[in-house]
Amino acid sequence: MVIEGLHKAFESRVRLGIMSALSVNDTLDFNSLKGLLGVTDGNLATHIKALEKEGFIGVRKSFIDKKPNTRYYITPEGRGAFENHLKILEKFIQSQKQD
Amino acid sequence: MVIEGLHKAFESRVRLGIMSALSVNDTLDFNSLKGLLGVTDGNLATHIKALEKEGFIGVRKSFIDKKPNTRYYITPEGRGAFENHLKILEKFIQSQKQD
Repeated sequence: MVIEGLHKAFESRVRLGIMSALSVNDTLDFNSLKGLLGVTDGNLATHIKALEKEGFIGVRKSFIDKKPNTRYYITPEGRGAFENHLKILEKFIQSQKQD
Repeated sequence: MVIEGLHKAFESRVRLGIMSALSVNDTLDFNSLKGLLGVTDGNLATHIKALEKEGFIGVRKSFIDKKPNTRYYITPEGRGAFENHLKILEKFIQSQKQD
């Protein structure tokens, strides 16, 4: 079945949303992601950690006006895996339509 | 974000696979589903239970040659929810391509 190629790391709409948001923004901070996705701090933090562990997103920590600023970005590996995931999803949807 | 409409019950490739298989077969027994999806008994049982709890699939128990036979089928509600899920996924994928 084509869906066997789907990556488990993306089996969540929050993770799809994080990858989507980071694929079109060079970097985003925690609160921007939270606002875009409409999720709680804890929920977002959990999914960010999981994607970071996979190497699909990275973290950049800095200081702006002496305040810590944490920004997230998509890694090349993450972009490739996400694009592949969407391709497989698309194939799956097409196969459903042919029934 | 369009993905907010995705149904949490389908956030798993195994569940997508179950719904897909049952959308094209009137009924399937446990072992047929297992063979189609290439998953373990425990994994399949967990996902079947979750979809049953949502009312998206139903169970029909009978005896064939005095042996118990359990077959699963998609409910009208399940078919509708699954089709809606796929539509939203498709919109999401299209939106990603326009970036």
